Amino acid sequence: MIAKPIEKIAIVGGTHGNELTGVYVVEKLARFPERLAQYSFEVVTLLANPQAVAANRRYVDRDLNRSFDNDDLANPVLTGYEDSRAKEIAQALKHVDLIIDLHSSTSQMGLTILPASTHPFNLRLSAYLSQIHPDVRICGLNNAENPMLRSLSPLGCTIEVGAVAQGILDADLFAKTELLIYAVLDYVAAMNAGTPLPAPDEVTVYKTLTSIDYPRDTAGKLQGMIHPHRQFQDYQPLHPGDPLFVTFMGETIPYAGTDTVYPIFINEAAYYEKGIAMTFTDKQQWQVETGVASLG
Amino acid sequence: MIAKPIEKIAIVGGTHGNELTGVYVVEKLARFPERLAQYSFEVVTLLANPQAVAANRRYVDRDLNRSFDNDDLANPVLTGYEDSRAKEIAQALKHVDLIIDLHSSTSQMGLTILPASTHPFNLRLSAYLSQIHPDVRICGLNNAENPMLRSLSPLGCTIEVGAVAQGILDADLFAKTELLIYAVLDYVAAMNAGTPLPAPDEVTVYKTLTSIDYPRDTAGKLQGMIHPHRQFQDYQPLHPGDPLFVTFMGETIPYAGTDTVYPIFINEAAYYEKGIAMTFTDKQQWQVETGVASLG
Repeated sequence: MIAKPIEKIAIVGGTHGNELTGVYVVEKLARFPERLAQYSFEVVTLLANPQAVAANRRYVDRDLNRSFDNDDLANPVLTGYEDSRAKEIAQALKHVDLIIDLHSSTSQMGLTILPASTHPFNLRLSAYLSQIHPDVRICGLNNAENPMLRSLSPLGCTIEVGAVAQGILDADLFAKTELLIYAVLDYVAAMNAGTPLPAPDEVTVYKTLTSIDYPRDTAGKLQGMIHPHRQFQDYQPLHPGDPLFVTFMGETIPYAGTDTVYPIFINEAAYYEKGIAMTFTDKQQWQVETGVASLG
Repeated sequence: MIAKPIEKIAIVGGTHGNELTGVYVVEKLARFPERLAQYSFEVVTLLANPQAVAANRRYVDRDLNRSFDNDDLANPVLTGYEDSRAKEIAQALKHVDLIIDLHSSTSQMGLTILPASTHPFNLRLSAYLSQIHPDVRICGLNNAENPMLRSLSPLGCTIEVGAVAQGILDADLFAKTELLIYAVLDYVAAMNAGTPLPAPDEVTVYKTLTSIDYPRDTAGKLQGMIHPHRQFQDYQPLHPGDPLFVTFMGETIPYAGTDTVYPIFINEAAYYEKGIAMTFTDKQQWQVETGVASLG
């Protein structure tokens, strides 16, 4: 049922240095290679941004996960730490068939799967994972516009867990991240063996639409916050007129749009500097194709 | 009823640069001085660590709130950014009668009042605040050992709100911080006027006992996390044998102590580097004395 078996998988943590879940999950995986060696395919682990991990910061010079644009990777002028690291990682993961990149968020992202591409394999894998735990959500699928580390391979996904503060470990999310990783590995093993695990025919996909910024003054200075009714309400419907922000003066700013949307990444700490208060998504039902891997 | 009226109050934010609640509350207070001018005493605001705020980090060179030891303040050899800042702040707040220092935590600290000293005034003020909101807790009172910014004046307190991730604003905690500040100001105004506001005769105080570290290996490397049953359970009783940590291997480490304690600052992001997983407290009932200010 697979055009070509998956031979090599990379599990990546610490792409953002202060997202500790991925850092320590990858370290645990690397410390006990015998468990990964039981699979019929090779599994490699990678700590993507060791200097940022050491500094307990998202990045040193620039966001590593925004450094995988093909032009940037080919640009010898870019020599910052993350520029160099991106080039090294792109080289190191060249022959990897599938990438799992581990992230966490201060938003209530639950167990979000962000597929690396719209490849049918990724969609069926995501559909399979959506049965593993009720907190699993599938979202994104606009990756051509924003090449990230996960985009180095057409197969795979980012696993984004939350809410958890930067710089701390949450044991529950740590365990759930491991659960999802082994679910991916088991899924690939079964598919490689020609006995794919069952997955739903249809899945809910939160397709990203656009991102919106916080209220700011003309100088760009923050003028308000996420409205308390919206905080930690990721994936919940935002209807026209619903409270969206509250200014420092206490004035509620309602959602002025005319369509119901499903905001995610609400109040993500790392996105203040990117001018993103939340990302609107459209809740869609997608048919799952067979999702066979066609790597050739 | 007051030996000497309180003439000058300082409200301080941004002692830790990534604790945004205090930063923006102080900025709002400073932007509308007319509201503070209504009081019979002077109220000044201070952004304590502007470079750390600009960098969205706790500190630049060292933790500013651990830089107020008298020996350090008098030591000309200490010239790091926070060393200099501490000296400037100690000078600037010299004639302040009462300090409110605004903080936030990734722990479920609710609305914690950490009095500047065991001065009866602080205890009665804390008792008054404990009626303002059910989330108010009074804790600490070991400040002679750990001089902090709040210790620059015998009167006053730290307000520590949480849980909130570093680098984000939580509108609910922002509003509650404001509520507590105005409660302090109203309390002082009434006391200055000789008509002190009523406060309970007895309060619950969480007296800090000791702090414990995460499980680590001999090289100091983290080996486990806060047990999920304990996460966000600040101020809840920890009984002998209760789950305390879980190792990365999934093994539960129970609390080996023989006395019930009340842990706080559980999984505070900034304390990983300090080797503090949580701080044990003893839940005590304290009698509130009249708490008149005796400043002379």
